[in-house]
Amino acid sequence: MRVALGVEYDGTNFAGWQIQPNQPTVQDAIQKAISIVANQPTTVTAAGRTDSGVHALNQVIHFDTDAIRTERNWILGLNANLPKDVNVVWAKQVDGAFSARFSAFRRHYRYVLINRVSRTSIHNNRMWWVFKPLDIEKMQQAADLLVGHHDFSAFRAKECQANSPVKTLERLQVTKQGDCIAIDVTAQSFLHHMVRNLVGVLVAIGQGDQPVSWAKHVLESKDRAQGGITSPPQGLFFVDVEYPQQYSLPAVSGFPVLW
Amino acid sequence: MRVALGVEYDGTNFAGWQIQPNQPTVQDAIQKAISIVANQPTTVTAAGRTDSGVHALNQVIHFDTDAIRTERNWILGLNANLPKDVNVVWAKQVDGAFSARFSAFRRHYRYVLINRVSRTSIHNNRMWWVFKPLDIEKMQQAADLLVGHHDFSAFRAKECQANSPVKTLERLQVTKQGDCIAIDVTAQSFLHHMVRNLVGVLVAIGQGDQPVSWAKHVLESKDRAQGGITSPPQGLFFVDVEYPQQYSLPAVSGFPVLW
Repeated sequence: MRVALGVEYDGTNFAGWQIQPNQPTVQDAIQKAISIVANQPTTVTAAGRTDSGVHALNQVIHFDTDAIRTERNWILGLNANLPKDVNVVWAKQVDGAFSARFSAFRRHYRYVLINRVSRTSIHNNRMWWVFKPLDIEKMQQAADLLVGHHDFSAFRAKECQANSPVKTLERLQVTKQGDCIAIDVTAQSFLHHMVRNLVGVLVAIGQGDQPVSWAKHVLESKDRAQGGITSPPQGLFFVDVEYPQQYSLPAVSGFPVLW
Repeated sequence: MRVALGVEYDGTNFAGWQIQPNQPTVQDAIQKAISIVANQPTTVTAAGRTDSGVHALNQVIHFDTDAIRTERNWILGLNANLPKDVNVVWAKQVDGAFSARFSAFRRHYRYVLINRVSRTSIHNNRMWWVFKPLDIEKMQQAADLLVGHHDFSAFRAKECQANSPVKTLERLQVTKQGDCIAIDVTAQSFLHHMVRNLVGVLVAIGQGDQPVSWAKHVLESKDRAQGGITSPPQGLFFVDVEYPQQYSLPAVSGFPVLW
């Protein structure tokens, strides 16, 4: 049978999602836990690969198994075998046609910054500290130039394995609460480092290093070298994934990302 | 001159606020940093002592010094000399009559729980995980029985050094967002462990182990042995302190506690 899981993790101490030799990865931690609970070697497929230091609230994965467990027992059994920085939030038996990766039609990320003179201790590994004051109205104006169906080559890491640099950015929204700024990003799929590179451009504009129109200039250049910095990973959260209703997956577990 | 600071910290790796031999404490970290920046040994006074594992968003402290620094340079200089889990959010020169401890007329705490089958990795050290479903309406009804001017002996740790067990609890409010529950607590001052003991009683009622009326029974017993458990420290945040307007201290830095 096929089982889907919603997985939350703090990415600080992992070399990212994807399994690789001699490195602690979230995929390896999850596969080891499932292999123990299912009593057979198990490989999982995830909705999205996240970089080292990037967090997830509801990374969705699936695997095939002969083991019969209730949904509650999958959660409790797996969490008992996972390190403290990874946990399973929900489990659900799904149709064999379901793929955590290929059935996903919308992925949501949130990037969180703290914008003040002082760094933050409490959210040290969960925010990007930007010292210079940011103008979020300019950031939103720039964001509006990037939303839509475009060639995002200028926001693509050179290691990116996607077939095409053309993506549809459905949402790029900047909001502020107190000294914290959230950038919410939605698309069906993303290029490697795309969210972090988008944030790098918006922050350069927000702190006045570049005009709003620079966002369009970078986009149209299709040249990564014209872009801004890649923002650091610790501000990035993989928040949620949407699938066709027929699979009846649980929504993300009502968990606020910092606010 | 006298200087006041707003201090944020993640209490996870500290043996609490107050300095003690051979233990890492927030007070010791701050005093060492100030002594370096001011170039003279310096002792500080805080608005409130927090337990090991308890966090602060705006712990207010003061100290006397001969050093002349701008407010911005106090912040930057101190943060350069503090470990990552403590930082100074604001600095202000204040009147010599100001005391971070004795001028405070209102202290605000927030206690945060996560209430679901699964623990949380992202907020592992910043929430109390309660497995059994909590009825927040019953918790609020119980909270309403505890608000006011009472003898809080039943909520007082035996190590408490306060002169009197009588306190005025101004606010005890339970709110929910998604799977998270916040309990906001306000008073001029508190007994040792009082907030954590109040939360212990509300949770016992919320999960149905005790009726709402038990809160009143515990309060009237004036006996700690009649109370509930002391909730764990990691869910507790010292959020803010209020002082008379004449001192013009900055408000807490608009920093959301998880939401």
